Amino acid sequence: MADILHRIGIKSASMDAVYQALTTREGLARWWTSNTEGEGDQVGNIIKFRFGAGGFDMKVTDLTAPSHVQWLVVDGPEEWINTTVDFELKQDGDYIILLFKQLNWKEPVEFMHHCSTKWAVFLMSLKALLETGKGTPDPNDVKIDNWN
Amino acid sequence: MADILHRIGIKSASMDAVYQALTTREGLARWWTSNTEGEGDQVGNIIKFRFGAGGFDMKVTDLTAPSHVQWLVVDGPEEWINTTVDFELKQDGDYIILLFKQLNWKEPVEFMHHCSTKWAVFLMSLKALLETGKGTPDPNDVKIDNWN
Repeated sequence: MADILHRIGIKSASMDAVYQALTTREGLARWWTSNTEGEGDQVGNIIKFRFGAGGFDMKVTDLTAPSHVQWLVVDGPEEWINTTVDFELKQDGDYIILLFKQLNWKEPVEFMHHCSTKWAVFLMSLKALLETGKGTPDPNDVKIDNWN
Repeated sequence: MADILHRIGIKSASMDAVYQALTTREGLARWWTSNTEGEGDQVGNIIKFRFGAGGFDMKVTDLTAPSHVQWLVVDGPEEWINTTVDFELKQDGDYIILLFKQLNWKEPVEFMHHCSTKWAVFLMSLKALLETGKGTPDPNDVKIDNWN
């Protein structure tokens, strides 16, 4: 098993504002992909994220407002299915610290390397959304390689 | 043990140009930290990378031009010592694909989450350097959190 880990710090935001950006369709669409369907505010809900090349269906498996959000990947690329996406929030001085994990990749395949970098870029989009009011979700996201 | 993995694709560059950016003091200083001492073009050499808050000493442990560069961390923060930093290059159509690894973290500590995101940002700086002629090395790098 292998895991993707990231940490960002968001300034000038409340924990609740970050939590909203992780649990509402509108919030998610403003930093990850504009083609997002479903609300992430109830455990058991399915959120459908679509990109040009496909997408992911996530089942909300834990919500502890305003500090924890967890999803299980129930559909998408084979390598993603049954991985867990986890967001943990805490205050540290002027920053909201977000610890991100995508846990339980079966193998550290090349696609995992890509997704690790791409998550970093999308988390920087989340940071920008909360700090400046504007994220860069797909399809206007920052491209990192020939897989986007 | 835990590993940081990333993948970027660099357009409009030769493998040799990317290899030079990973193995010369001048190249490294233009995308990672401007305070770099030592050349990375000989196995056994030590390269010293310094940032505001400290830095890392790397021993060059493998060079296979133009496709592989490997360093062992011999000094720096305790969590980094004895980790391996590995760059693998290959051509894929118009892109030079760079697979990055920092292998053998003892524990997936919070600092590892930070370093994972920060490596992504610095690899995007390397991509920008080669595609546009300008990277964003420390101290002008993109800040990701309260640890920089």
